[in-house]
Amino acid sequence: MAKKQKTFRPKARVPRGFHDRLGSALTAERDMLARISAVYEAHGFDALETPAFEYTDALGKFLPDVDRPNAGVFSLTDDDEQWMSLRYDLTAPLARFVAENYDGLPKPFRRYQVGPVWRNEKPGPGRFRQFTQCDADTVGAPAPHADAEMCALFADVMEAAGIARGDYIIRLNDRRLLAGLMEIAGLAGVATEDEAQRMTVLRALDKLDRLGEDGVKLLLGPGRKDASGDFTEGAGLDAGQIDRVISFVTATAQTNAQTCARLREFFGPSETGLAGVQTLDEMTMQLAALGYKEDRIRIDLSIIRGLEYYTGPVFEADLTFEAKDDKGRPVRFGSVGGGGRYDGLVKRFKGVEVPAVGISVGVSRLLAALALKDNTAKVAAGPVVVLALEKDQMAAYQQMAAELRAAGLRAEVYLGGSNFAKQLKYADKRGAPLAIIQGEDERAKGEITIKDLVLGAALSKNIQDNKQWREGQPAQFTVKRAALVEAVKQTLPRKSQ
Amino acid sequence: MAKKQKTFRPKARVPRGFHDRLGSALTAERDMLARISAVYEAHGFDALETPAFEYTDALGKFLPDVDRPNAGVFSLTDDDEQWMSLRYDLTAPLARFVAENYDGLPKPFRRYQVGPVWRNEKPGPGRFRQFTQCDADTVGAPAPHADAEMCALFADVMEAAGIARGDYIIRLNDRRLLAGLMEIAGLAGVATEDEAQRMTVLRALDKLDRLGEDGVKLLLGPGRKDASGDFTEGAGLDAGQIDRVISFVTATAQTNAQTCARLREFFGPSETGLAGVQTLDEMTMQLAALGYKEDRIRIDLSIIRGLEYYTGPVFEADLTFEAKDDKGRPVRFGSVGGGGRYDGLVKRFKGVEVPAVGISVGVSRLLAALALKDNTAKVAAGPVVVLALEKDQMAAYQQMAAELRAAGLRAEVYLGGSNFAKQLKYADKRGAPLAIIQGEDERAKGEITIKDLVLGAALSKNIQDNKQWREGQPAQFTVKRAALVEAVKQTLPRKSQ
Repeated sequence: MAKKQKTFRPKARVPRGFHDRLGSALTAERDMLARISAVYEAHGFDALETPAFEYTDALGKFLPDVDRPNAGVFSLTDDDEQWMSLRYDLTAPLARFVAENYDGLPKPFRRYQVGPVWRNEKPGPGRFRQFTQCDADTVGAPAPHADAEMCALFADVMEAAGIARGDYIIRLNDRRLLAGLMEIAGLAGVATEDEAQRMTVLRALDKLDRLGEDGVKLLLGPGRKDASGDFTEGAGLDAGQIDRVISFVTATAQTNAQTCARLREFFGPSETGLAGVQTLDEMTMQLAALGYKEDRIRIDLSIIRGLEYYTGPVFEADLTFEAKDDKGRPVRFGSVGGGGRYDGLVKRFKGVEVPAVGISVGVSRLLAALALKDNTAKVAAGPVVVLALEKDQMAAYQQMAAELRAAGLRAEVYLGGSNFAKQLKYADKRGAPLAIIQGEDERAKGEITIKDLVLGAALSKNIQDNKQWREGQPAQFTVKRAALVEAVKQTLPRKSQ
Repeated sequence: MAKKQKTFRPKARVPRGFHDRLGSALTAERDMLARISAVYEAHGFDALETPAFEYTDALGKFLPDVDRPNAGVFSLTDDDEQWMSLRYDLTAPLARFVAENYDGLPKPFRRYQVGPVWRNEKPGPGRFRQFTQCDADTVGAPAPHADAEMCALFADVMEAAGIARGDYIIRLNDRRLLAGLMEIAGLAGVATEDEAQRMTVLRALDKLDRLGEDGVKLLLGPGRKDASGDFTEGAGLDAGQIDRVISFVTATAQTNAQTCARLREFFGPSETGLAGVQTLDEMTMQLAALGYKEDRIRIDLSIIRGLEYYTGPVFEADLTFEAKDDKGRPVRFGSVGGGGRYDGLVKRFKGVEVPAVGISVGVSRLLAALALKDNTAKVAAGPVVVLALEKDQMAAYQQMAAELRAAGLRAEVYLGGSNFAKQLKYADKRGAPLAIIQGEDERAKGEITIKDLVLGAALSKNIQDNKQWREGQPAQFTVKRAALVEAVKQTLPRKSQ
């Protein structure tokens, strides 16, 4: 007790590359994920939660390099000397879970999982080392039905998240079409350099949206110099090969049936390609019968997703509306999620292929898009603040807050000093829409004053309109104590107008 | 490609001390936490999410021992050589967050946080190294108002979780009463052995509920031998001291006002004790004015919680109903959460005291209690399964599932082989309440068959009542296709009877 020591004072700081989230930044995500989860549930998917840790070998990484045990993932050794890593996605834990519980699970096994994942990467602006993923997968069911269901689910998820029909599109392609294309274009060699060339071709096709046909042709051939003068090496295809590849990509037609017809013609002799066309045809016909037509789900031959991983249909959810950023510039969001069929899920553990198909929602991109689209969401989300002006009236103030809560509103009593201006400043800082005021005078008359803080802020910004505003909607008014809840309810809806 | 290697096959296993949760085991927790969060929100608390990692020094641990870097917490070094640890509770991150953002936060600052925490401890039965915590804290507001509010919030949280009024009690004590008791009993010495003796006294008092007055007297005096013959060293108090301590604990009266009156008499000269009584008196009077009376919030002088930490009022939420375990034996749950006032929250970072008060809900204990209390929750929670008997009718089956979902029900189509028995077995394994069957015959007649799987299971268990059941409620029946949704809705409610 009498020991005198220099006190160590750690600096309070969030770890590098991580961030805290408070209030609406967090609840907007939580509420969206709850709506998406409800869609997954309705479709028969069961919620799964796996722990943050997996054994490192189960993640597909072997024992970490002793010098760099945290390359890509966060790893540590348990006290029994086994390496554990924080999961970097939700698919690797699913693979481990399915392999571990294979015999006991119903098959097909449908599960969804929502939760944080961790990446041990160099942090960048807006790129964090912990973020939320939201996946749904069907394990043990073959194409095309499980894949069609996944596309319908994806569309339902977009609408549940708050994206109106017409503002998104689920684009659909098949891994086997691209493999067939390589055969037809004479790019199916098995040497390492052939594989590299195929990847260059696919990267080129992935840019069709951005560079247009001419730009892609350069990337397929000799290479392309961009506006800044940087040169990108091309795939070195000859003119005939380029024509074939381009004629594939431009085979995307207005209707899915037309696209399939064109593809059948295009693939003529390629069995791999035709298998892909057959699946897409069956999927889109089944989807159309359920009402999911080209306005929601369209074959798009320029969709390229993680090709080393997928084995059949691939999907991408794209936002198609234009929003404006806070400087008024148009923003296009593009992809807010993707997925596809992959049959190697549990092969690492069990040595056998199990068919699987899944989607992953791009949570933070989707939220960012919704925030820009829906400016009305930016209303004051704070609680109604009941000021505490007389110390011996705390129970009366708490009673007011309790009545407001009972009516379904957020409400709290200020708990600090009795300074009036400080209390109002607090209410502002809290994003409170209203403050409830009952001083000695009001109390004597059995009244309360309701101060509209949002309107008050608007008033102070628009001095020229002050008189007009005041006449129409005063920023504060007085009502009988018994009318508290009714008066607050009538005042609140103004916010969202 | 032609490389031949012995394939490494990792064993699929969840890491030691961790567990997976699937379906209702997970959604029951999620739904309860959503209801509790809504109460926190309504009271003006804002959601906070901090990352899984904190710098180790911010957790109150200094650089980990190089030989045991993971003692108690999971730790690793970042690539800039800083030690990071996974949080072991939600209070340490709150302290770091408040210290880091102090000037920008409204004060008082009310926040709640729900999320996983990690403990690097020896796993045991039902004790996991990752579990969920659910906390609410008010930072920057002094007693008694913030403390009274926290008690009211605690009661509201219990009811939102699903505990009926009368089945729980919020017990209330004050750290300063116990400090005052030590003064009065002549146990206020500052030597290390005095501190140890005080802890022994407090541990003895903590057992009043279990051992009764006589058992506690032994623990306060010479020591106590339990039924198994194990001897617990006593605190070595003399008869007069024991009397004083016991007269304190038994001062708990029927009403909070009576308890406060008795305590005032008891503490006569002890300023520390009287300060505690004054706070409890003000809190309980304010709570009573708001309708929170002794049936919900009671002063209980035997409540002892983490004394090295709390500085004022302490609370504990106890369940008071008796439930039966699955062998019919009575189970008492006791504490399902606690909290109190602690003023040292950010002192480690900023060197100044900031008043704070908070509660923490014991999520897994509360869930376990609810599960035992509410057996009706154990209805079939799986989706309605539409069997897929004819491969070319998949769109028709999906249409049935879509109609059921549009009516707010969980529904899915079986996606596997066409074997009828296998499909029914799948539906059972999924916990499906109903299966929808449309084979060729039914389709020709424009009908569907609804098979009640829960009733079917009951029938097969009660052969003797078979005839009677069959006559009253058949386990399957046929309706027109157009009546699908209506018939399913009418059949489902049976489950919860």
